[in-house]
Amino acid sequence: MGVSIDQDLLLGELETLASFSEVLAPAVTRIVFSPQDVRARDYIKQLCAEAGLQVREDAIGNTFARWEGASADGPAVATGSHIDAIPNAGRYDGTVGVLGGLTAIRALRRAGFQPRRSIELIIFTSEEPTRFGIGCLGSRLLSGTLDTSVDDQLRDQGGKTVKQVRSQAGFRGELKEVGVPAGHYSGFVELHIEQGPILEREKISIGVVTSIAAPASLRIVIEGEGGHAGGVLMPDRRDALCAAAEVVLAVESAARETGAIDTVGTTGVCNVFPSAVNSVPSRVQLEIDIRDIDGGRRQRVLSQVERAAGDICKRRGLRHELQVINADAPGTCDPRIVDAITRACGGLNLSYKRMVSRAYHDSLFMSRIAPTGMIFIPCRGGVSHRPDEYAAPDAIANGTRVLAETLALLAGS
Amino acid sequence: MGVSIDQDLLLGELETLASFSEVLAPAVTRIVFSPQDVRARDYIKQLCAEAGLQVREDAIGNTFARWEGASADGPAVATGSHIDAIPNAGRYDGTVGVLGGLTAIRALRRAGFQPRRSIELIIFTSEEPTRFGIGCLGSRLLSGTLDTSVDDQLRDQGGKTVKQVRSQAGFRGELKEVGVPAGHYSGFVELHIEQGPILEREKISIGVVTSIAAPASLRIVIEGEGGHAGGVLMPDRRDALCAAAEVVLAVESAARETGAIDTVGTTGVCNVFPSAVNSVPSRVQLEIDIRDIDGGRRQRVLSQVERAAGDICKRRGLRHELQVINADAPGTCDPRIVDAITRACGGLNLSYKRMVSRAYHDSLFMSRIAPTGMIFIPCRGGVSHRPDEYAAPDAIANGTRVLAETLALLAGS
Repeated sequence: MGVSIDQDLLLGELETLASFSEVLAPAVTRIVFSPQDVRARDYIKQLCAEAGLQVREDAIGNTFARWEGASADGPAVATGSHIDAIPNAGRYDGTVGVLGGLTAIRALRRAGFQPRRSIELIIFTSEEPTRFGIGCLGSRLLSGTLDTSVDDQLRDQGGKTVKQVRSQAGFRGELKEVGVPAGHYSGFVELHIEQGPILEREKISIGVVTSIAAPASLRIVIEGEGGHAGGVLMPDRRDALCAAAEVVLAVESAARETGAIDTVGTTGVCNVFPSAVNSVPSRVQLEIDIRDIDGGRRQRVLSQVERAAGDICKRRGLRHELQVINADAPGTCDPRIVDAITRACGGLNLSYKRMVSRAYHDSLFMSRIAPTGMIFIPCRGGVSHRPDEYAAPDAIANGTRVLAETLALLAGS
Repeated sequence: MGVSIDQDLLLGELETLASFSEVLAPAVTRIVFSPQDVRARDYIKQLCAEAGLQVREDAIGNTFARWEGASADGPAVATGSHIDAIPNAGRYDGTVGVLGGLTAIRALRRAGFQPRRSIELIIFTSEEPTRFGIGCLGSRLLSGTLDTSVDDQLRDQGGKTVKQVRSQAGFRGELKEVGVPAGHYSGFVELHIEQGPILEREKISIGVVTSIAAPASLRIVIEGEGGHAGGVLMPDRRDALCAAAEVVLAVESAARETGAIDTVGTTGVCNVFPSAVNSVPSRVQLEIDIRDIDGGRRQRVLSQVERAAGDICKRRGLRHELQVINADAPGTCDPRIVDAITRACGGLNLSYKRMVSRAYHDSLFMSRIAPTGMIFIPCRGGVSHRPDEYAAPDAIANGTRVLAETLALLAGS
């Protein structure tokens, strides 16, 4: 195609998007359906409308910006990502795929490309699990892989249901109308920062993702007995935090002990109750994330953690409740999409490498209903989910060019 | 004396006081200078005024309700405690000493007692360390054992200084005017629930405190490296929570290993940052409480924890900062006050036992400037700092009677 993208505009828009945040730059906190998220959505919708795209939203807040192709009634080619950000995150995770997607579409339009298939940019709701404990809410519902009863069953920390918070943000339809069938899209491709160190380390411009690891998330609530830190003698204690500390270390050991570099285990949340220096912790909630590209190995680590938690609580005389929040199967990218991306790289003379995505993405769920692929770009030090997350302007531009060429190949002219 | 106390009124007032809370009954949360604390203060001041006492407040919010004695210019006898409550606490800790003190004074007035020395009820500000990380703010300042620079130096979690929050609550004077010299009070006696199981277990009505254990409080901030829970491989991790988990277990071990029943060690606070299931913890703040009636042994446990934290962080390649928030010397009760309390018990035909206070109290700091004693009453299961904290009506009434008789003995007629 030979499209030319407006790199300065894209970088400026990434900066503007980062300003919709609960915290000061360079950190970004943008929780789904928060005022910051709603303002960021408005900004993106405005950009899409200005680019001449037809904007539509569904009941969970997934946003679709459509460029009608010659075969308007046939399945569209889609690209997209998310704009929500975990507490104190950076500015590139998800956003590069959204604004890069928009930039790619603009570039194709400017180049006079006439797509046969329609092209849709999708901004998925709540890829991050921060608010409701489960990631990819929007793409799970769009792909029909999540029961719509979550609308009333999932609650945020303030006790509000999905239905309540999405209604307050202006999304009032029924969740059962969100899902689309397999075949609705002829292909899906997501541009994203790698969130790992490989491309940078090996000085490669583009990662062509062939499979997507999926996390298992576990919530463990440990119930002990509280009391005054001076008054309760050590032999009488049922300290929930001491048990939780053992579980945290058991997660670390279990992930290390597989010996496989692809196994990771993290306790990211440890909420202590009542949380006072002079009070014995009576309850602790842990949230644990275990990932692997090998589903069986991941399951063995998960089982090991579950057993360890049981043993620790039994030995200490504490009660515990254990809940597997999600344990999705890993996803495989479609050879036809992988091939289109590699052809785009070749045409642009960019180095590329086939790789696994260790982080999971909306693409994981899109792969259940459409041929799916992902384009990775390097990020500094492999760092993500931190304020110092960084992708160089060149890397972002390269990824956006590859995305534009890939969309052109998939949409046809 | 043979005073008669109004038990029903006292129990009703305890119930009303418990209603000034951020959380639903039976739990009580009343953080110093919160709207609930301010309303509770207004309630107590109104009761004191109705009882004919002269009410005065100092710059930190300590409240004094005075009954003028015949020797109005000489040193007064004081009693009192606190009304602030840690998150999800019960309704008896501190409040029994405040409303019991007021009830004792009312009973003495009703009985026609004419005190030679003035009698003062003191409601101390922020006995609990919840808001500013240090307990007994009011009694430390009153006894001149805390530098008044805390006014600008201590901050709450919202970043507000002591000066800012006390000003907002209406306390605008200078902290340097709070302190009173040794001899200002001829004696101080505090009524309190035991917060331990001994009196209940041994079926004894009154504990006569002879010494007060003091805590050492430690804050440890561990700084690791965050990142995406999928993207950062296990060998590259600098997980602050894994290190913190080891420290929590080291605190428990160090306290157990002295072999002395009087050593207790607690990690009550464990704040994780950024606190997302899919993010490696980059920073953890621990707050640790170590107590003993033997100051030297407590110091050895403290040093052991400090060494362990250093070793753990070094081995894991993490930075840490360690701050001893306070490490007060244990306090000794005055034989003359102890004697007055035991005589009061004898006169009322109540069983009593000399004992150590494992929890610390405003009495610890009052003992630096005045002959001090404490009256303990049993509480169910030794439980405190929990919603199910409970002292029986009879126990509260017995303690209040002993306090009234003790005040009469100390004030003279």
